[in-house]
Order: sequence, then structure tokens, then C-alpha cells
Amino acid sequence: MAGNSFGQLFRVSTFGESHGRAIGLVLDGCPAGLAIDEAFIQAELARRRPGQSAIVTQRREEDKAEILSGIFEGRSTGAPIAMVIFNADARSKDYSHIADKYRPSHADYTYQAKYGLRDYRGGGRSSARETAARVAAGAIAKLFLLSEGIRIQAYVSQVGHLQLHGNYQELHLSQAEANPVRCPDAAMAEQMEALIREVRKAGDTIGGVVSCVIQGCPPGLGEPAFDKLHADLGKAMLSINAAKGFEYGSGFEGVRMRGSEHNDIFFSEGGRARTKTNFSGGIQGGISNGMDIYFRVAFKPVATIVQPQESLNEAGEKAIVEGKGRHDPCVVPRAVPIVEAMAALVLADHLLRHRATRV
Amino acid sequence: MAGNSFGQLFRVSTFGESHGRAIGLVLDGCPAGLAIDEAFIQAELARRRPGQSAIVTQRREEDKAEILSGIFEGRSTGAPIAMVIFNADARSKDYSHIADKYRPSHADYTYQAKYGLRDYRGGGRSSARETAARVAAGAIAKLFLLSEGIRIQAYVSQVGHLQLHGNYQELHLSQAEANPVRCPDAAMAEQMEALIREVRKAGDTIGGVVSCVIQGCPPGLGEPAFDKLHADLGKAMLSINAAKGFEYGSGFEGVRMRGSEHNDIFFSEGGRARTKTNFSGGIQGGISNGMDIYFRVAFKPVATIVQPQESLNEAGEKAIVEGKGRHDPCVVPRAVPIVEAMAALVLADHLLRHRATRV
Amino acid sequence: MAGNSFGQLFRVSTFGESHGRAIGLVLDGCPAGLAIDEAFIQAELARRRPGQSAIVTQRREEDKAEILSGIFEGRSTGAPIAMVIFNADARSKDYSHIADKYRPSHADYTYQAKYGLRDYRGGGRSSARETAARVAAGAIAKLFLLSEGIRIQAYVSQVGHLQLHGNYQELHLSQAEANPVRCPDAAMAEQMEALIREVRKAGDTIGGVVSCVIQGCPPGLGEPAFDKLHADLGKAMLSINAAKGFEYGSGFEGVRMRGSEHNDIFFSEGGRARTKTNFSGGIQGGISNGMDIYFRVAFKPVATIVQPQESLNEAGEKAIVEGKGRHDPCVVPRAVPIVEAMAALVLADHLLRHRATRV
Amino acid sequence: MAGNSFGQLFRVSTFGESHGRAIGLVLDGCPAGLAIDEAFIQAELARRRPGQSAIVTQRREEDKAEILSGIFEGRSTGAPIAMVIFNADARSKDYSHIADKYRPSHADYTYQAKYGLRDYRGGGRSSARETAARVAAGAIAKLFLLSEGIRIQAYVSQVGHLQLHGNYQELHLSQAEANPVRCPDAAMAEQMEALIREVRKAGDTIGGVVSCVIQGCPPGLGEPAFDKLHADLGKAMLSINAAKGFEYGSGFEGVRMRGSEHNDIFFSEGGRARTKTNFSGGIQGGISNGMDIYFRVAFKPVATIVQPQESLNEAGEKAIVEGKGRHDPCVVPRAVPIVEAMAALVLADHLLRHRATRV
Repeated sequence: MAGNSFGQLFRVSTFGESHGRAIGLVLDGCPAGLAIDEAFIQAELARRRPGQSAIVTQRREEDKAEILSGIFEGRSTGAPIAMVIFNADARSKDYSHIADKYRPSHADYTYQAKYGLRDYRGGGRSSARETAARVAAGAIAKLFLLSEGIRIQAYVSQVGHLQLHGNYQELHLSQAEANPVRCPDAAMAEQMEALIREVRKAGDTIGGVVSCVIQGCPPGLGEPAFDKLHADLGKAMLSINAAKGFEYGSGFEGVRMRGSEHNDIFFSEGGRARTKTNFSGGIQGGISNGMDIYFRVAFKPVATIVQPQESLNEAGEKAIVEGKGRHDPCVVPRAVPIVEAMAALVLADHLLRHRATRV
Repeated sequence: MAGNSFGQLFRVSTFGESHGRAIGLVLDGCPAGLAIDEAFIQAELARRRPGQSAIVTQRREEDKAEILSGIFEGRSTGAPIAMVIFNADARSKDYSHIADKYRPSHADYTYQAKYGLRDYRGGGRSSARETAARVAAGAIAKLFLLSEGIRIQAYVSQVGHLQLHGNYQELHLSQAEANPVRCPDAAMAEQMEALIREVRKAGDTIGGVVSCVIQGCPPGLGEPAFDKLHADLGKAMLSINAAKGFEYGSGFEGVRMRGSEHNDIFFSEGGRARTKTNFSGGIQGGISNGMDIYFRVAFKPVATIVQPQESLNEAGEKAIVEGKGRHDPCVVPRAVPIVEAMAALVLADHLLRHRATRV
Repeated sequence: MAGNSFGQLFRVSTFGESHGRAIGLVLDGCPAGLAIDEAFIQAELARRRPGQSAIVTQRREEDKAEILSGIFEGRSTGAPIAMVIFNADARSKDYSHIADKYRPSHADYTYQAKYGLRDYRGGGRSSARETAARVAAGAIAKLFLLSEGIRIQAYVSQVGHLQLHGNYQELHLSQAEANPVRCPDAAMAEQMEALIREVRKAGDTIGGVVSCVIQGCPPGLGEPAFDKLHADLGKAMLSINAAKGFEYGSGFEGVRMRGSEHNDIFFSEGGRARTKTNFSGGIQGGISNGMDIYFRVAFKPVATIVQPQESLNEAGEKAIVEGKGRHDPCVVPRAVPIVEAMAALVLADHLLRHRATRV
Repeated sequence: MAGNSFGQLFRVSTFGESHGRAIGLVLDGCPAGLAIDEAFIQAELARRRPGQSAIVTQRREEDKAEILSGIFEGRSTGAPIAMVIFNADARSKDYSHIADKYRPSHADYTYQAKYGLRDYRGGGRSSARETAARVAAGAIAKLFLLSEGIRIQAYVSQVGHLQLHGNYQELHLSQAEANPVRCPDAAMAEQMEALIREVRKAGDTIGGVVSCVIQGCPPGLGEPAFDKLHADLGKAMLSINAAKGFEYGSGFEGVRMRGSEHNDIFFSEGGRARTKTNFSGGIQGGISNGMDIYFRVAFKPVATIVQPQESLNEAGEKAIVEGKGRHDPCVVPRAVPIVEAMAALVLADHLLRHRATRV
């Protein structure tokens, strides 16, 4: 209820603060008998890890997930899987200067307003460091989905004004991991990287968009009314730090279309129903139809900038906030594995929920 | 779990099919002692009702909500409030021709794939008629919010390519109800209405955008990790039929900005922290900051069109679907009260959840 | 959250007050494709109905459940099943004399303390009339369980000091329905009936015990830590009006035994593991082991008696409460179908939950 | 959903196996601003710890809870509180002889039946070692309750046939901690201890009863229909390993009474409503009435005995199970703090839930 858990049957609960002793998670409801590849979990964490390239924050964290429970002889037992990542390079002193100040567009003010006190070090619980726990849980979700033939691939499709146009089908999605920006178009990736470097040099930050494609999803996942598959995906994405928008299928652009253009015509292929176009984004009436699911997530420019900004302190007096700490000039390269992890958690949950559908 | 309930503490469960005996809802967790204005509930339903103007579906439903429980001597008692709306003008025969066919971009195929059977009449459970129950529950949520000084106002900001530009502050939002489109700009409303009429004449449909503004929300609502206020708003909106996208504050446009432009600078006014700009959309770190909350919801063109379309039947054979039934050429005018209702349900829930925050 | 729903995947929400317009329920999560026998639902309600015999309350209610949704052509569709029972013989005037008084050992005082107001007519929401909704939902759960080979049979095993001794295996459980007390031992049933008549004549009431046996439950139902099968059964039973205790298997008596006597020795029969004794009551470590599940539920004497009692009014002043209204001298004969219904709801829920257990 | 979490708003999730790396918990929803006394948490764990006296298991575990998150400068922050207890003295080899055998009346068979595999070492997840996590979380719940004036005291009231008679009011409950049995009557405690020693010498085990009294609970806690306060207490207690029964107030004995004896007569004292008797056990209609809450929990004899027993192996063949490992001859002395912890978790949860009750 306090909002630190996600999912109904495949359910992750995260804990931990940026500069506390550790962050971690409990994954409850992972089906028994799943082969758990620890190296894969670690590889996923490496994709999110700070310090992975020159265009991300240089905080040094190994992000080693230690499994405490729920696995026996390499397989999930059906018991809760707990993982802990101890914080290593937590320079809490970097934050003493803002202990009683509200950084603009951060959660400092709202946490204070909500709780009456807050762990100001590195943003405490509001830090994006919490997402490492999501990636670790998401890795297990991915293993489960892979065993059912479902693959998830996200990539950066926009940084600032630099935007990939065209359909994802024209891209080599697997190329996304070939560059630090995680944009599958090499030429565009170069431009994006240059822009991020320029922005960082200016002590500034910039926003971006992560796109995501899910392939191999069977028809039938998602619930009719409130827990539509895209509604749960939307919530999952909007729960990621700095997310500002979500659209799937034709999205905001589809608004301009007529029904006669937008409707996806069914045809039969190999005995399976398919659609000629896919403006539905693989989801109709909130339920997957077997076509690719795709969606886009907007991320704002990171709020921490290396420029002095006017603000308030806890007493309500004017105060100057100066940018210190180590932060990302643009969040999207590291957001890619987080988007995938959250998508995997949604799909794994709906796969299990779907099992209760028929007599 | 089956997705027909929404909210944690202020929780609505809906039931009913488009052409079944009735639709309805149970609202559990409405605090005791709230004065329930039945006329207000009815007025809200009238805003969503079919047949309210020439540009919406002409199905004739009075949409009279009968309260079965939970109210005593005009006040909520803390017991579940059940309401039923009996279906009157259900012309199920209109649907016999599609009993075994999948209408393009409807939920016919996905329901069949999920459940192995379906109530095909009027889309059954997948019909937007279900949202009447949401509006009735939302009316009670609004009464609760009003008692706390929170006001919600939605309006149509785009139909097809016709888009309102500029900030909501420049609009007279209360004018939205002055025309059948529910656009607060009278000139634009006229153009939009003309476009909708044209589209309908062509037997076609068109998409649109509903914008929403929430005023008077205190700081502190929303939970940090997964149940961020905007994440729950996003899910709520994406759960509305035909929704394709959600953005709040700077949204997808904010992606292009730099942090130095996008950050909302705090200042003190009358002892309260306020921000000079509001790209945050009233929510920081997932928690309300006391500024206006605003967001936009994209709706696709309605899938039912009065044109023959190729499709499949349940046997997987080619079939022609012809558009019959009475449907909206554009969903957004009637979506306005639904967007408000869902926003009210989210806010009411978070208001109650917030009470558990401190010792 | 407000406590009017039960179950995770097979989930019932009830609503309605004793003297309001109607009581009812929404059952969400019933698997699609289940044949719904409406006559069976009605027959179950008849077993709980007031006025069914001379030893129960003489309030006249037909208790006709009207199905509003979720069934199409005789089968569940996977959509929520809503049922309504309109109140007919609600003599609210019978209660005007206690509008501001607290009846001893009723919920009058605690409701007032909790909510600050209450629907005093017939106990409002606290009335056992709410259990009719449980019986209707439980009937559907039973149909689902029967399709999986699981049968539930409850019976009266004690009224006041009159107690059936010996094991349930020595009884002809099906005989329970042959007499108004619902005790499967005809001689004991006669004594019990005489005692209830005597107590009623004295304007008094008396307690009792309902025992329940579940046969055909497969091994594997129940969850390890908090949602042990017997813990959920216990909560289900204790949520029934007037329940004061629950025990399963060896129960409170087992406390006196040694481990060497109490342990149930496994043996193999027809390839299935069975146990020689069944002190475990069919549940080990919270999970069913395939043996019969059995448990007992204690019910206190009904609080409404036809004798003047000292009490308080809402102002905190002394007041005399006189027994009016039509009430049961002993709750257990009508509690039998309620116990079965709640047991069925627990089992149906765990059957569905179990489907998510393995990869 | 997989049953490893408990509570709605004050919610604990436990993880860990008896012989895995660690056990632990995440407590979500603890209100912000609560002073956390770590020494108190440790003291509560010491009451449950193995090896605390000669009449409990001699496994040597320090049971040191390490706090990983959610506390800042000695106070809860509103973020999830994670605690880990690393396993020290896990002699897994003690269990290799039963790797493929089902110990009678343990969870070995049912876990295998449910999951298809199991961590057999020390019972894995089914071990009572999991309850250490409950005690740690319960300690924080107690701190919260104490800040609201609510005190919980459990004690041993029966071991085998040795039973304390009379009311708890005649006992000096605080004396319960003065002896290893945790029975507040010194003479009875000595007899009980002698019985436990005798049973242990015989390589056997014996059952017992834990009674519990909650004082200072305000009127109004508990929900009307399914989440009655005693129903949630009952589930909490029945979820403890080896629990077989629960009764509150007059319990199973109350069955024999007449309503005219059993009804608790209200009177006013110091402006507060009180009752002359308290057969209701402090709960009426599922809601606390401000009187003492009291209940009893039955525990079976521990299943592990030092005697060879006939059983089956995973192949379904006959096998002899010999008792090894270090186990309790009687569970109740160590169950006392567990009962208190679970009661505290229920009360803390309902305290928070109650805050949402009125406008």
C-alpha cells in the first residue's frame, strides 16, 4: 500500500536508499523450477550501472546482487527471492550542503511535505538508484518470459531534438547495445552522444525517449477493465524516475487519424489471426492480440545541473542550491534496461494472472 | 485481481455488460459522514450519457443510477455503496450479424482468445458503457475531494488535427461545458464540431485529446516508488476505452528541453512553497507539490465505422464486417467526465492513503 | 481494504444492509466457461433463508438472487458476476426503539464508535443478512469445486451442552439436511431441536458448533507463510457473524498429545501418499496433503434476547433495551450453509492461486 | 499473493530459508517519525531465539537483525524497513539423510507436491525460523502501538494436560518472563517445565496453548464484514507454525452459554462505555469496543521426534525417518513472542486502516 511493491502474482518489493547501507528487493511469486542464471542478472545490472561509459554518472558502484533466498540448486523454489546490493561509493558528504535545502524539480520538498522528515543523502529513497533493484527482479522476469518465448528490447529513440523517425521494423534493434547511447541507428547514436557531451560540458542536462518492443507475446494477456495490459505497462513506465509520458501503438499521433485508416485489418496466417497494420500496438481492449507490443516513454532532463539555482530551505527562506554530486547528463541510456525490466515484470505478472482465466 | 477493481482504500469495483441486464459498481472505502448529493451523481452521468447531443451516439439510455446501499439519511455510512444502472435501450439484434466475427480493432478477437467465449452483444464487458459506473463512483469521489478543496476540470484540447495551443491558464475552463464538444475555446469548439459532423457523415471516426487540470491538491499525495501519483493517474487514464497515451506536466515536449530551462524554481508565497514555472505538472518525485496538476490523454478514433471491412470469423475464415449499431464518431466529448471521474478516484484514494503516512 | 471483499483471485465483494433496499455481491475472478446452475444458487440460499423452519427467525424473505452480469448463455464469461437480493420484509419500525441505544453484545456501540453514525435498522451492515450474499457467491464456488471433484459438507455438531462425539467418519453426513437442526445424528438432532425450542420459549438463545469436512481436495493448495490454507479457512470462518473460535484437525484437544501419537504416518495407496491417522486435518505446513480437511467453528449464543437488558444510549446515559425483532434462538442450523460457502470461497481461491506455482 | 506478506497498510513481507544464507523481512508502511529502538528489536528476538534455555532447541543462532534501510537518524522515514538475519549455525548435513524422505506431519510432502522441488535443509521455507522475521517486524509494530498506549502480553497457559484455569485478571502477567516456560503462575511453570523435560528425555514432544491479552486498544479498530478484528487476529495466529486452533473471548466454552448470561452489559465509567463482563473479548461485530482483547492459540506437539518413524520417500517407497537435528520438545515457550508479534502486526495495521474511516 505504501507503494513499494509492484505486481499481483509476480510481485516485487524494493527497499533501500541511495546512501543507506544497501538497496534490495524481494520477489514473491516467481514460479518454482525456473533456472536462475546469476550471470544474466549481473549482466542486466551492468547495463544500468553507473560509470559504464563516459556519458553517464561516474559514481562507482559494482552493483553486485547477492541472492539471499528462494533459489536452491540453481532453481527457483517458489519461495521469495531476496537480493541485496550493498552501497559502496556513497559520498554522503556531497549532500551535506543541501541537507536543509530543496533542490529544484527534485523530490526534496515533496518528501519533506509528505513525511515531515527525510533522508537527504543522495535523494534517499527518491534516488534512481532504487531502479537497480527493479532491474535485478526484471532479469528474473525476463528469464521466465524467455522460457515462454517472449523477448523484450528497448532502445533510445530520442535525445533532445534528435529523434529517430520511421518504424522499429526498419531498425536493427540488437544494435542498440553497440553504442553507449543505446540507439540502434549508429549515425544517430553518434549525434546523440555528441549532444549529451555538449550538454554535460555546459553543466546542463537533456531529456529523451526510450522505445520498447515486445515480441512473442501470446494473445490473451491483460485484463478487461482497469488492469488493461497497456494501462499496467503505462503505470510501470511512469513509475520510473523522470518519466513524463507514455504512449503505445499509434499513441498521440494516432489522434489525427480516421477510424478507417487506423483500424487494423485481420487476416489469417498459418492458422493464426494477424493484423495487416498494427496501430493497436499489439493490444486490443486491453488484451494482447499476438502482434508486437510497442510503446514509447518520455523522460525529462535530469534535475541536477552544475549551475547555481535559486530555491528555498526548510525554513521557507531563499537559498542557493549549487550542483554537486555525480549525475547523468541524460537519463535515457541507462533507462533502457529499466524500461525493459519494468515491462518484463508486467508481462510476467499477466502471464501468471492469465492462468486463472478459464475453468 | 481480475482487473475490475481500482484503488486501494477508496476502491471501486465495476460490473456489467453493454447489453446485459445492468451495469453497476460497488464503492468500498468511502469515508463515513460524507453528504451524498444524488442529483450531482445524476448530473455527472448526464455528461457521459449517450444521446446528449447530435455529435454522440444516439443510443437512448437514461442512465439512472439507483443506490442500493451504503447511504443512510443522506450520508455515507462507511459501508460499501452499491449503485445499479439498468440497461434500457439494448438493441442486441444489432449485433447478431457479428456474433462470430471479429470487428477490426475491437476487443472481439482478444476476448475470444482470452476466455474461449464472449458476450458479443455490444462488445459485452469491453463496451465503453462500463465507464458509466466509473462516472457514478467518480461523482462520489468528487464530493469527497470538494470537501477537501480539490477541484478537477477536464476539457477537449484536440480533435483530429485541430489542436488548442497555449497554456490552460489562458483558457476559461468553465466554458468547456458550454458546447457539445467540451472545448473551452468557443471558436475552436465550432471547428471541432464541424469536423466531427463531417467525419460522421463520411461514416468514419476520428481521435482526440482530453486535457485535465486539478486545482487545490495539497502537497504530499502520492507514494515514492511504484505508486507515484502520476503513475496512478496514468494507469487510470490508460484504462479508459480507446486511450492510447498519457503525459503530464511538460510531457513528451519536455524531452527537448534542458534541465536549466525545465527546472521549476521554488519561491515562497504567503508562507507556502510555490514554483515559478510548473513543468513538473504539480508532481515531483511522484508526490504532489501543491501546484496545479495537469495532464493530457490521447484517444484513438473509434473502431466502429459505417463501412464494410475485411476481417476473420471465429473459424479463422475471411469475413466482411459491416458497421451497424449506434456509435460515437469521436469519443472525446463524452470522455471528459470519464477522465475527471478517474482522476477523482485516484486523488480520493491517495488522500486516504496519505493519512497513514506519519506517526 | 475496507474489509468487504474476500479472496485474491476468486474474489467476492458484498454490499447491503439488513433493512436497506437490497443486499448483493460482485464475484470477480470466476473462471470463464463454468456452467452456472441458477437453481443450485437458489437452493443454497434456501438453506440459509429465514423462516425455513420453526426453530429459526420468522422474518419472511424469499431471498431470490437476481443475476445482473457475468453470465452469457448459461456460462460464466470471466466478467464479474453481480447478484442482487432485494429486501422484502424489512420491518424497520421494529428498530426505532433502539435507534439511539446500544444493544448488549451487538455491534451498535462499536459501529457508532468507528463511524460516528450508523444505520441502526436491523443492525444495518452488521446484520447476518449480509451472509446471504456469501452463500450466493459460495454456490458458484461450489460449482467450480465440484468440476474439480471437491465436495464440502458442514453440519451441526453441538448445541449448548449437547455435543456429538466420535469422528465424522462414523456419521452419515448427508443426513444433516434431513432435520431442521442440520445434525446428521437423528437422535441427537431431536434433542438439539428440543433444547432450541426450550431456549426460545424462555426468550433466550444458545450457542453451538458447526463442523465441516472437505473431501477430494488435491495436494498442494495453500501458501507457505501467512496464507496457509487453514489460516485462510480460519479467517473465513471467524468472519461469520457470532463466530468465536476455529480449530482444524486435532485442534485444541491435540495440545494434550505427544508428537509420537500425533504424527500422521505416511503410506502409499494406489500410488498416492496417504496417512494412517489424520490429526493434521488434511493440511501440513499450511498446504493440503490430499487427505480430508476438517475443522470446527464455535458460535456464541445470539445476542438478541426477548428480555429487558440494561444498557447505554448514545448520550452515555442508562437505558433499557427490550428485545423485539425476529431472531434466531440458535444460529448454527442456518450457519451450516454459510460455513460451507466460506470454505468454498477459500478453496476456489487457492485452486486458482495454485495455478501460478510452477514454471 | 504467494502468501509471504501480511497486512494491508502496515505490511510485512518475509523471506529466507532455515539453512539458506539469511532470513529477513521488508516492513512497508511503517509511519514516518517513529523512534526505532534497535535494542528493543534485539530483545524481542532474544525471547524467540533458539538456545535461550534448557527446554528449547539448542541450535546456536545469535539472531542479530541488521537494518538495511528505512531508518534515518533513529527514526522511521516512511520508506520500507528491511532487516536481515544471517544464518550462522546451519548444520545442513543434519538433513542429508532426509533429502528424499517425507518426515511425518512436516511440510516435506506438501511442498514437494506443490512445487515439484524443495529446499529440504531444515525444512527450508517451512521452518519456524521464518518467524524470527515476524518478531523483528512485530517489535516495530509494538513500538508504534506503545506510542498509542496499546500493550500486548502473551503467556503460556497450557502444556499437555497442565492447564491454567481462571481468568487472566487473576494472574500477574508480567511474571510470565520470569521462567523459561513463560507461564505467569510460578508453581504451574515448574510443573510445565518438568513435563517438558520428561517429554524431551523420552525423545518425544508435546503441545500447548498460548494466551494473549491486549490492553489499551481504543474502540473502533476492525472492519465489519470479512476483516473483522478477531478474524485477522485468528488468521495471524493460525499462520504460525504448529498452530491448530484459535478462540477469543468466551471461545468454544461460550457455546454452552445462554444469551442472557453471555451478553456483556454496558455501563458508563468516567464518560466511557464499558461492559460488566467481557465474554466478547473486547470485540463486538468485528470491531474493538475498548475493553481488553484476549484470545488463545492451540499448538500441536512438534513433529520432529527422536524416534524412528515409518514413512515414504519421493519415489513413493517405504522409508524410515530417524529424528535428528535440534528441535524444541514443546513449541509454546518460544511461541509467546511470536504470538505477540503477530498480534502487534494486526493491531498496527488496523490502527492505520482506521484512519481512513471518516470524512
